[in-house]
Amino acid sequence: MIDLIAFDADDTLWQTETLYIDAKAKFKQLLAHYHDEQWIEQRLDEAEMRNLEHFGYGAKSFTLSMIETAVELTEGRVEGREIQQILEWGKYMLRARVQLLDHVEETIAQLAASSDLMIITKGDLLDQEAKVARSGLGRHFKHVEIVSGKTRDTYATILARYGVEPSRFMMVGNSLRSDILPVVELGGVAVYIPHPLTWAHEAQVDAEIDRDRYVQLDHIGLLPALLEKLNAA
Amino acid sequence: MIDLIAFDADDTLWQTETLYIDAKAKFKQLLAHYHDEQWIEQRLDEAEMRNLEHFGYGAKSFTLSMIETAVELTEGRVEGREIQQILEWGKYMLRARVQLLDHVEETIAQLAASSDLMIITKGDLLDQEAKVARSGLGRHFKHVEIVSGKTRDTYATILARYGVEPSRFMMVGNSLRSDILPVVELGGVAVYIPHPLTWAHEAQVDAEIDRDRYVQLDHIGLLPALLEKLNAA
Repeated sequence: MIDLIAFDADDTLWQTETLYIDAKAKFKQLLAHYHDEQWIEQRLDEAEMRNLEHFGYGAKSFTLSMIETAVELTEGRVEGREIQQILEWGKYMLRARVQLLDHVEETIAQLAASSDLMIITKGDLLDQEAKVARSGLGRHFKHVEIVSGKTRDTYATILARYGVEPSRFMMVGNSLRSDILPVVELGGVAVYIPHPLTWAHEAQVDAEIDRDRYVQLDHIGLLPALLEKLNAA
Repeated sequence: MIDLIAFDADDTLWQTETLYIDAKAKFKQLLAHYHDEQWIEQRLDEAEMRNLEHFGYGAKSFTLSMIETAVELTEGRVEGREIQQILEWGKYMLRARVQLLDHVEETIAQLAASSDLMIITKGDLLDQEAKVARSGLGRHFKHVEIVSGKTRDTYATILARYGVEPSRFMMVGNSLRSDILPVVELGGVAVYIPHPLTWAHEAQVDAEIDRDRYVQLDHIGLLPALLEKLNAA
């Protein structure tokens, strides 16, 4: 029996990576008269990774990394109006319409009728709270936990806080690194729903995870049937 | 009897506003060849307030507001090296040494021996977690709650989560708006410890709070005696 079902949010419940991909494409275009696009993308990726430790995840951090990359790549020649353009993309990312993934709306409503649901997501506190509100799904979730990283310890702390046994906890997400591996290690039930656009950093896992230790689904609409099967077993 | 004592962090446990004041002073100097300092400060304050809704609190948001103000004030003439300078101040704010306020270290250690302590703070998730870690005080706090805003609802949700009655909850902080007013409204015990450099936005309260409904202390070192008095009453 599962007592608590937790969901990752970005690219599990709604589209997120598309916003980053669009912003990156515009960023490369903006600076195309300084450098070739592949070089720009590589430098931006490096800045993101380098800044992750201090800036953390989310649109504000990404905006700061774009600005830093623009200054560095142009050796300071970047123009004020170009910086302003980057700031505007950042603000757009923070207020963009939340686009639910297929089957999310009806599946979450259906599951909420019989189970305790939770969101566990990384990123900017305010941005993630605002997305939960804009998604229209907020009322279905008993708890929303926004965390700075998703390690085994993160999950253990949350489960202890709510008094849930790991074996009765299910985590659903699109990141092997953040949603699946730590939950498998903890003895929980992990459900991997790949998203075609998952950020490379999230898809990459250092350790191999045995494919038998988690469940993979094609889309979230298949979750109620899986739960029924697990509960019957 | 008090079951749980919660502390605000910035400018209650450690210096924070000084970092912002220093960054503002350097920012005004940086742009002094474009505009007079008072005008620069006013425009930066406006940007901060305007962006609060989307960016939230914290050093990353402040850095983005400085960059935005620099572009606007110079009508785009700001130079790349000036933007880079602003980014560096932002990074410095995120990794600066945590400077504990007077009496904090011994008072927190003393209180932790007999009470459950908690931190409730606004701001960047990662930045606040990192400051708790760098402060060396982390082990004394049973819970750390980082929130996007501090309303009556915020406190009510936290108290419900940990099963604490408002009347058995004490909140200690330097902001009338965020730490005192909502806790008084909820029926908790609020202890106001003014800090000479509290951000104007935090000091301002829309409603009057009756001075009889909260306790004011000159410094945190007076807290154990207050608790003793309350517990004896």
